[in-house]
This record gives sequence, C-alpha cells and structure tokens, in this order.
Amino acid sequence: MQLLRIGEAGAERPAVRVDETTFDLAPITSDIDGAFLADDGIARTRQALEAGELAPVESSGQRIGAPIARPGKIVCIGLNYSDHAAESGMDIPSEPVIFMKAPYTVVGPNDDVLIPRGSKKTDWEIELGVVIGKTGRYLDSPAAAMDVIAGYTISHDVSEREFQLERGGQWDKGKSCETFNPLGPWLVPAQEVPDAEKLDLRLWVNGELRQDGNSSNLIFGIGHVIWYLSQFMVLEPGDLVNTGTPAGVALGMAGQPYLKPGDVVELEIPGLGRQRQTLVPA
Amino acid sequence: MQLLRIGEAGAERPAVRVDETTFDLAPITSDIDGAFLADDGIARTRQALEAGELAPVESSGQRIGAPIARPGKIVCIGLNYSDHAAESGMDIPSEPVIFMKAPYTVVGPNDDVLIPRGSKKTDWEIELGVVIGKTGRYLDSPAAAMDVIAGYTISHDVSEREFQLERGGQWDKGKSCETFNPLGPWLVPAQEVPDAEKLDLRLWVNGELRQDGNSSNLIFGIGHVIWYLSQFMVLEPGDLVNTGTPAGVALGMAGQPYLKPGDVVELEIPGLGRQRQTLVPA
Repeated sequence: MQLLRIGEAGAERPAVRVDETTFDLAPITSDIDGAFLADDGIARTRQALEAGELAPVESSGQRIGAPIARPGKIVCIGLNYSDHAAESGMDIPSEPVIFMKAPYTVVGPNDDVLIPRGSKKTDWEIELGVVIGKTGRYLDSPAAAMDVIAGYTISHDVSEREFQLERGGQWDKGKSCETFNPLGPWLVPAQEVPDAEKLDLRLWVNGELRQDGNSSNLIFGIGHVIWYLSQFMVLEPGDLVNTGTPAGVALGMAGQPYLKPGDVVELEIPGLGRQRQTLVPA
Repeated sequence: MQLLRIGEAGAERPAVRVDETTFDLAPITSDIDGAFLADDGIARTRQALEAGELAPVESSGQRIGAPIARPGKIVCIGLNYSDHAAESGMDIPSEPVIFMKAPYTVVGPNDDVLIPRGSKKTDWEIELGVVIGKTGRYLDSPAAAMDVIAGYTISHDVSEREFQLERGGQWDKGKSCETFNPLGPWLVPAQEVPDAEKLDLRLWVNGELRQDGNSSNLIFGIGHVIWYLSQFMVLEPGDLVNTGTPAGVALGMAGQPYLKPGDVVELEIPGLGRQRQTLVPA
C-alpha cells in the first residue's frame, strides 16, 4: 500500500494505492500530515481498505503532489555515503553532519525544478527520505528510533553548489531555493519496506545514469540517524529526514555538468516509485 | 500598537495592545499568522481599533505566547555584528552568512528554556527579529525589501556552542534544540518603528548586563538582509528572520560562563518589550 496526494498544487486530495488501484482517503482524513500519521492514520487506512470502506478514484492524468503535507522541518544528513564524501573532496564524518532545508521547498515528484537566477551550479542528489510518524525526543537507541518512522519516500535534495560552498560558510544557502525538494510519488509505510537499508537509489540526467547507489552503504544507518537527531532536536510527526546521497553528483564529475534549462532528471528507488523533473529558469 | 498572543501554549488567542490596554483580536482573525499578515491584517486591526470594534480583554496573569504562530521557516544571519564576529574568532563576512533554526523552536518570551541533555555550552544571543508580511522573491533592492516586512520583535537565538561548532561542521546542529527561540512579547508593526536600525539590544544574565548593542552596528542592514535572502529562497508571510547578535555572548567572554539550570536571562529592546526566561534541564 502506498499513500499519495493527488491534484493541483495546494489542493491535493489524500489517496491510497493498492495493486495499482487508487482509493480516495477523504473519508479517513483531510490530508496526509503529521496529525494523520500521529493518530494511527496508516493503521486506520489499512483497516478501512480491508473493510471495503474506501472508493476507487480515477487518478490517471492527474498531478501527483508530495505524499505528505508541508513538513514542520526538513533535516538533512550530509556526506552519509563514503563515495559521495570522497567525490566532494571532504573527509568521512565521525558523526552525522546536520543541515536544514526550508519546508516550503517540497514540491511534487514530477513538478518542474527551478534553476535559481544567477545559478551556475544547480546539482542533483537522490536520497532516501524518512517521514516521521511519532514524536522522537531523546530516543534511547537506534533500534528504538525505528519505531518513530512512519514510512519512506524518494527525496530529491536539489542543491546549488556555489551558493552552498562558495558564498559564505554554511551550506543552507544552497539548499532552500524554490522547488528544491521534489518528494514522492508515494509514502510507503515502514512495515511494508522489508529492509530500508537494502534499497537501490538511481538517478538519470537526460537518460544517462548518474547515481547508482544502495542504502546498504549509508555510513550512519537509518536508526542511528534518527536516534542521533533526537538528541539535538525533537522530531515531530510529519517531519522529513533526508538521509544523504550516494556518489555521482555533478560536483564530483569530470567537467562538472551542472543542470541547465530543459534537462530532465529521473529518480528511482524500486518499491518507492519514480520521479521525473524538467529544469526551467526561475 | 502591539500585536500579541495570550494564553496557554498551543491555545493562544490573538490580541492587540494600545497604551497598555489589551483588546481581543478574535473578531478579526483566529491567529496572528502568515495568512493574517498577508491579508492586510495589521491595517484591518488598526481600522477595527479606530472604529471601536474591539473589546478590551483581561490579560494580567496570563501567559504571553510568541507573537506569531509557528513560522514556515526561521532564517538566521550569522556574524552580522563586527564585535560578535571578533569575539567568536571569525572573520567579518563579505556577504551574509545564512543558517536555519527549526520552526518548532519558537516559544513564548517568558517560557522556560531547556538546557539540552549533555549540553555544556548553552549560550544566549539577543537579536532583532524581522517578521515577513508579504511574499519576497527576487526582490529588486534593499529599499524594496523593506516593503515585505510586517514588523519587528525580540528574538532569542539560543545556541549550544559545542553542538554548533565542535560536532561536525554545520551550525544548525546547535541551533534547533527544543525551546531555543523565545520570541516576543509583541510584534510591533514596521510603520510604528521609526528606525529599526537605531534600536538598543540588551541582555542580562542573573541581573548582570552581558550584551549591550545597537542595530545601527549591523554589518548588513535590514533591507540588505531581506533583499539578499530573497535571491536564495522565497520569503513567505509569517516567516521569521533573526538578523544577528551583537557582542557579549558566553563564547566570547573570559571563562565562558555558559548557562546552567536556574539562571535567569532577561532581554530588552526598547519599544519592542522585554523577555525573561529561566533555564531548566531538558
């Protein structure tokens, strides 16, 4: 089962998808957000499906939005794959590197991505996105941290490298441009992802494979990351954690082929779906 | 006139204060948030006051909340006073340094501040907070940027220096702990602040004056900061911008007297009110 949000930006309707049939979730909730996740929304959705209480809805041809409403925060882990740290010319971190993206950056998985005005170094980063389902505050252990995860989705941590690395010290400046976090298409409940640390992550630019990683190569695993974050901040239902990107970004490639208008980026994590964005000028 | 929110955390009611009388704003809006500010809420409040349409409300003895609902994002400017850059052992920046605080850190101006578990270096930072009233996207100039400002408030950018500076590279790790952004007591409309770059900022710890700055010493002025930010992200109504702190933080003092349980921090910006927090263990 996959949770999703269908419709025009700002007017998405909640839905659930099973065996390629989409059902309207409106009888259960007005949105897929922190309140829904905290209130056992995933279990209630499953029960309603089993009881035949949800009606099929036509979804073909409609826009797919991000699978969750705007999160309360987006927390990102930097340099969490050793091959990406190496290509970035940075040391492997001894503990997780944390930075933030502004929550307004979230857009649908197939929406256009805007190249910021003045940008010369807009880059891609496929990541495994973790959506929080329960409050996480000073969690006891990485194992306990797995209990606060609602599910997983594809997160595209679009990054402007000049803004991030050459314009004054902190990475956030290159991470929060408009449309810089395509998300989705689906939120897959954690119970239905047998091993989130054995997922392939692949990204293509104009049909050429650029990133081809696997979450088994995370330096700090998912439970560790969530446990660690909870020592520095309170994770709330509906929050998004971007767990890091594997090698293959433009920054690390010969010639640094950054994105330009008209480029098409496609992302895939088998089981979590596919994204496809066209780059356009802001 | 000062906008404020009164009542228990999570159940604040909007209010407006004129000449020390507080009036209920519920007839105008359910909250002081981005939608209210974007919809000319300040002008509508003024009209309702002049028309005698608002009823006085008893506020003494009640908790004061943050003067705005949880913002969409909190964007902070680092090292924006030369004396603070010097005491931090850092260079004066050639363009604004940007970092983020998670929006959930906002609490009322007199709420307790939690010292994070394991913290040895919890520090204070008084700042002039700018609240955004209109969308700011690729603004044309610092002068034009002043038009998107709804008003000003006191913002306490509480910071954990070990987490910020010694734990892996990006400052955000020490900036988003629970309760780390006391805000208020009031949002003072921009029209009623004759010169936001001539405000005294003072902070005391246990009665001893620690910070005594003036916003005339900002390296990058308010209009410049808002204009600059709008080149890297879209500022939305209800967002908060923390403009930087002057010298006098524990990090820069002999003996580095970081905060401990029981300490009391008081902050004042004449015209914008006073804050008072007690430090307690998380």
